[in-house]
Amino acid sequence: MIDVHYWPTPNGWKVSIMLEEIGLPYRIVPVNIGRGQQFEPDFLAISPNNRIPAIVDTAPASGAGPVSVFETGAILMYLAEKTGQLLPTELAARYRVIQWVMWQMSGLGPMAGQNGHFLLYAKEKIPYAIERYSTEVRRLYGVLNTALAQGEYVAGDYSIADIACFPWIMTHKAQGLTLDDYPHIKRWFATVRARPQVQAGLAVGAELKAGKTMDEETRRNLFGNLAGGTP
Amino acid sequence: MIDVHYWPTPNGWKVSIMLEEIGLPYRIVPVNIGRGQQFEPDFLAISPNNRIPAIVDTAPASGAGPVSVFETGAILMYLAEKTGQLLPTELAARYRVIQWVMWQMSGLGPMAGQNGHFLLYAKEKIPYAIERYSTEVRRLYGVLNTALAQGEYVAGDYSIADIACFPWIMTHKAQGLTLDDYPHIKRWFATVRARPQVQAGLAVGAELKAGKTMDEETRRNLFGNLAGGTP
Repeated sequence: MIDVHYWPTPNGWKVSIMLEEIGLPYRIVPVNIGRGQQFEPDFLAISPNNRIPAIVDTAPASGAGPVSVFETGAILMYLAEKTGQLLPTELAARYRVIQWVMWQMSGLGPMAGQNGHFLLYAKEKIPYAIERYSTEVRRLYGVLNTALAQGEYVAGDYSIADIACFPWIMTHKAQGLTLDDYPHIKRWFATVRARPQVQAGLAVGAELKAGKTMDEETRRNLFGNLAGGTP
Repeated sequence: MIDVHYWPTPNGWKVSIMLEEIGLPYRIVPVNIGRGQQFEPDFLAISPNNRIPAIVDTAPASGAGPVSVFETGAILMYLAEKTGQLLPTELAARYRVIQWVMWQMSGLGPMAGQNGHFLLYAKEKIPYAIERYSTEVRRLYGVLNTALAQGEYVAGDYSIADIACFPWIMTHKAQGLTLDDYPHIKRWFATVRARPQVQAGLAVGAELKAGKTMDEETRRNLFGNLAGGTP
């Protein structure tokens, strides 16, 4: 069983989509980040960076005790290696996927997070920061569009590189972008979105966010001492 | 032979340190990012995100044609797997390392980059952004300090997790931080810095930066359409 410490956000969806794709049984453990549950000691023991999602594999392949993993890029790799799915074993194909997962982790995710913060959440409108991050996110979309001009998916066959990127491309409207400017992303986005496993993953925990409002407590828990935009 | 498309920056040093640690023969191919060489087609074919470093392994274990890898997290994993060094094979130990490499890639690196940008490079002083990123970098240092309170190295034995984090912790003064506030980082930093392989890696390409100045061309190439702080 995989326990998923989870909240329905782009990073959470990466893992719920992955679990639906690979068909492993899993159990959702909600971590209400608007109410600060990511700062509770039980969660920090699994995820010392106080971010969701994190997983605990209660029956790892090693046969040893439970294995916990934080950071979505590591979780995607772990689940791919556990099941032999969505990450090739052949050397060149394998690192083609891993480098694009790293690109999402180090570029698309953090920079889209900053862009979202300054566009939507910051109490001040700061033209320099808005320009800086919207320019960078457009550059990153351009890089992805060029990659997708060369093949149907981000890095060869459908893989964890697609699952890593997809939930962040879902936020394009909030980022002030239209996919009409990125035709290869637009085609890929429709293909990935149409997968039943992706739809099932996006539905996981949807009820948790019912009635979500950006009140002061939520703002403090999300941004009080965090740089993440949409966590 | 490993060709390293390289410039002496924190991300470049990750790879030069790694190569010195594992003892593989390598050849440096300078990419002068102040002069815009990261935008040239030959480099983009290897590193479509126009960032250094990237590697080309001309003799991969597969026996097939050359393998190129971009993104430092992927390069570190590739070199570790190629040589069987600095990344455990045992499941729990392996993912303990990978999750901290991902933490450096998605958190410490990008956020220290933003902090450096707003503290040192932005032409405007923007209190909101300076506060946002200095707070987040302090939080990340606190997370690392807590991890290092639990063991000598970041994730078990000395590994690619240490090599990923070290060059970014080297920038602590520029980040406005003192390691006196993070005693476990301070102890670890001295241990890692004392390694001859680390010193050798930091010396790679030092001559390339001789006479480096932040002139207008450099500023345009580094920040004109990039969000990276210290690339």
